[in-house]
Amino acid sequence: MTMRFDLPTVADLHDAALAARLQHKIDQKTKPLGSLGRLETLALQLGLILGSEAPELRAPQMLVCAGDHGLAARGVSAFPSDVTWQMVENFLAGGACVSVLARQHGIALTVADCGVRHDFAPRPGLVDAKVGPGTADALSGPAMTAEQCALALSNGVRIVKDLPGNALLLGEMGIGNTSAASLLLARLGGLDIADCTGAGTGLDTAAVARKTEVLREVLLKHPQAQAPLDVLAVFGGFEIATLAGAVLQAAAERRVIVVDGFIASSAVLVATRLNAHQAPAVLQRCVFAHRSGERGHALMLAQLQAQPLLDLGLRLGEGSGAALAWPLLVSACTVLREMASFESAGVSEKNA
Amino acid sequence: MTMRFDLPTVADLHDAALAARLQHKIDQKTKPLGSLGRLETLALQLGLILGSEAPELRAPQMLVCAGDHGLAARGVSAFPSDVTWQMVENFLAGGACVSVLARQHGIALTVADCGVRHDFAPRPGLVDAKVGPGTADALSGPAMTAEQCALALSNGVRIVKDLPGNALLLGEMGIGNTSAASLLLARLGGLDIADCTGAGTGLDTAAVARKTEVLREVLLKHPQAQAPLDVLAVFGGFEIATLAGAVLQAAAERRVIVVDGFIASSAVLVATRLNAHQAPAVLQRCVFAHRSGERGHALMLAQLQAQPLLDLGLRLGEGSGAALAWPLLVSACTVLREMASFESAGVSEKNA
Repeated sequence: MTMRFDLPTVADLHDAALAARLQHKIDQKTKPLGSLGRLETLALQLGLILGSEAPELRAPQMLVCAGDHGLAARGVSAFPSDVTWQMVENFLAGGACVSVLARQHGIALTVADCGVRHDFAPRPGLVDAKVGPGTADALSGPAMTAEQCALALSNGVRIVKDLPGNALLLGEMGIGNTSAASLLLARLGGLDIADCTGAGTGLDTAAVARKTEVLREVLLKHPQAQAPLDVLAVFGGFEIATLAGAVLQAAAERRVIVVDGFIASSAVLVATRLNAHQAPAVLQRCVFAHRSGERGHALMLAQLQAQPLLDLGLRLGEGSGAALAWPLLVSACTVLREMASFESAGVSEKNA
Repeated sequence: MTMRFDLPTVADLHDAALAARLQHKIDQKTKPLGSLGRLETLALQLGLILGSEAPELRAPQMLVCAGDHGLAARGVSAFPSDVTWQMVENFLAGGACVSVLARQHGIALTVADCGVRHDFAPRPGLVDAKVGPGTADALSGPAMTAEQCALALSNGVRIVKDLPGNALLLGEMGIGNTSAASLLLARLGGLDIADCTGAGTGLDTAAVARKTEVLREVLLKHPQAQAPLDVLAVFGGFEIATLAGAVLQAAAERRVIVVDGFIASSAVLVATRLNAHQAPAVLQRCVFAHRSGERGHALMLAQLQAQPLLDLGLRLGEGSGAALAWPLLVSACTVLREMASFESAGVSEKNA
């Protein structure tokens, strides 16, 4: 398989001087050293991504990528495929969870049709990035052709180029896409599929067992898929491939990337593998919003050496967890910009 | 010891019909059943406290209670007592962490001088609730007299009565107050003081050991203090007693109470013990914002059977953790009010 376009180049950010200045600034704030815990490491990270001792998040963009999955016909989901397009309509009408949370936090919402099995009327907030009417059944053949995979990746790059602001939140919708994410994790992580497979939208124990067996067969069907780009094409997800392209472009532009749950994380995993030597630079731009209740997400986060912000048993997707974590990022920047120092506030420092 | 005033009466909220309606409404939202995890139990709780299927948080109030501690002279803190008044000035000037976060979230900030060893000029945002210039040294005698303790409790009741809105966030400031909270936890919880004592504002291992020995001596000095009101008076904290009164009044008024970290939780622990039969009703109004990095807080939360929202290694106090968790409460209410149902959005339900 050859790439039809060049993936974005993500430069290393090694600014030891800025890191030292940021840490000094954090340490001089009127609080005991380290007492803001995870918020302090977040502030440091955001300062480094945005290249500023006074970072400010501007015009945050929630990108919800939607697509259907041929594998859904194998009974791997508790919901019918039609829910994908119905939920896209719900996002656009403002009634979905991510719509409500984005509104709460002033996050602009863009929905990308990456390959939903439905024709949408064009309208504001909906981007046409359709590669096809759902992926093919990965149990019969590859979910995407090489051309489709390259197109989806380049769509992600293009979409991000057109979005304003310096922060991108990743969301997704696609009945069957926990299956694709589990397959990607198992193959790219060298893990047993049983450890990577969960209840998705709400399968019971027996149904999870059946889903696991279907996914095991899919993996056996494609032993040749080992290179990351092949893995992505074969196990699929138009929305996952589009998100992976979006991650690379956002990282190249030094945007803050807020990663939602299991499926969004799988797009980051793919993005880090497509060009392994720039994986640390990609991950440096990523803030992992939460540890999902979906089985496999903890393993995925471990693969990515990620320390998520929230742990609320969320397993909805859509970017809902990213939106819930968003105010913590704003707080980290606001603390850096607005909190007084011991000197400026005239507060005594720690006893010698 | 006799009480000089009647503690507020906190009525049970047993509205099984409302609970059922709320749960049904949550379950009919366009999302897999239970997929919003902890946010769903939070939405249910907030609906029950506010007595509404469409709860709305109005005019949230951050109450930061400040006081000094005679025990601080025993070297139990890494910072000098003067930091208490200096930080009160910092709160009022808008430069402290809680000031910055309250501003971010539109939370009104009230600072109560419950007994700081300093004379403040009166100004907007500062409430005079001073019981004395710091508590007495609990190693020499009781930290407060019975009269002082009753006054501090009644001050908390009075302050909350004067605040608008339907949500109260609890914050505190007081060099030495992790010691008071540890003593309260050890005695009220029947726990070993070593398990209840932590680094506070940043003691090293040797200093924590010395602090633990001082606190052990304090406990040995007061074997007669067993009744909750006696325990509160003897081990003290003007700011903790004021907060305990505030908790009871807020609970009586069915306000949502957002509990910050170790010290704020100790005020809730006291409030639940002062009138044990209404403890479940008090706790029903409490949302525990986070699990603090301070040793002992996990044990305290276990005593209160509390499941906190955040776990970010915070150990600052001031109400900073309560402010960081606040948007999650707003989200829970917004989801209840604004998210579409399967029926209203025309989304298919789960496969049979």
